[in-house]
Amino acid sequence: MKRAHSKDEIVQTGLDLILSKGFNATGIEAILKQANVPKGSFYNFFSSKEEFGLAVLDLFLSEMAALWRPFMEDVSLPPLMRMRKSFEVLITRFEGNNCSKGCLIGNLALEMSDQSEVFRKRLDDALQGWIGSLAALLEEAREDGAVHIDIEPVVLAENIVASFEGALLCAKVKKSVEPLKNFIHFYFEMFLA
Amino acid sequence: MKRAHSKDEIVQTGLDLILSKGFNATGIEAILKQANVPKGSFYNFFSSKEEFGLAVLDLFLSEMAALWRPFMEDVSLPPLMRMRKSFEVLITRFEGNNCSKGCLIGNLALEMSDQSEVFRKRLDDALQGWIGSLAALLEEAREDGAVHIDIEPVVLAENIVASFEGALLCAKVKKSVEPLKNFIHFYFEMFLA
Repeated sequence: MKRAHSKDEIVQTGLDLILSKGFNATGIEAILKQANVPKGSFYNFFSSKEEFGLAVLDLFLSEMAALWRPFMEDVSLPPLMRMRKSFEVLITRFEGNNCSKGCLIGNLALEMSDQSEVFRKRLDDALQGWIGSLAALLEEAREDGAVHIDIEPVVLAENIVASFEGALLCAKVKKSVEPLKNFIHFYFEMFLA
Repeated sequence: MKRAHSKDEIVQTGLDLILSKGFNATGIEAILKQANVPKGSFYNFFSSKEEFGLAVLDLFLSEMAALWRPFMEDVSLPPLMRMRKSFEVLITRFEGNNCSKGCLIGNLALEMSDQSEVFRKRLDDALQGWIGSLAALLEEAREDGAVHIDIEPVVLAENIVASFEGALLCAKVKKSVEPLKNFIHFYFEMFLA
């Protein structure tokens, strides 16, 4: 058995398993076995499975931000193109996972929002943060005259995030990126074009 | 203890629990206890928890169809109004549940699509059936000249269903029907108007 596994390794293994199987179906023992960590270690790092789940969510959020932030912040591109590319990089990753796993925010949203108020609040913060970033780009696009839509940027941004999460849901069932390609087409080649 | 509980009662109790807690977190024992049915009865009716889950999904689909079908089939209304009302009745039900539970198709889609090919196929069929019904209304609206959009009805219908499921997801996290009201506004007062 390997020794000296860090908290980070347990969280990384947990992310992989929870993305695949969900939070409730992933047992702590399975995580520790896969991470090759002795049972006792878990409670050195986490007071509960819920606290662990929040650390896993944080890791997912930072991994996703590392993917989309470079596009969101690329000021050489117009704001709507930055937004489009920030979604396309997530779609490419999902496709690389054979249209499985998906978005941990969405997965936990449906599984845990009614079960844990702590999870629900953290997920709400994550969604609102994402929506805020997109709303800022929409506002910028509106100031540039690139969007002429009579709807508040934050409302439109929430609609876009909801549609993306829903398209991921359909894509996960269909095992096809088609719903996600249609999401891109609908917003970036029709509605916002 | 009450006796002579039917299969239907076990399925109804299962629907309530699985909508609230998810499939994996709902144990057979908890269902039987809540339905007040002796343990042995379960396997008189179902060969496995998966088979039971499919019966629960079927019950959910028939309950939802009973809600939206009267609106979808009300030919006194124009097709887009029929569609709008078919969504609004689902939103009213969700609101009546304090923005919890949500749609069993969406919940199981994210929880079970990667875990059970049998579930995935049944969920895919359910989504495709729903999309097909909406596509027929969009086609009718196009023939009436009520919609002038350069997109295949079935592609637009898939986009609408995805956006609705995503709005439900956001609403479940936010514990507010706002994302669903925005879904209605976006499609029926802006994009399709």
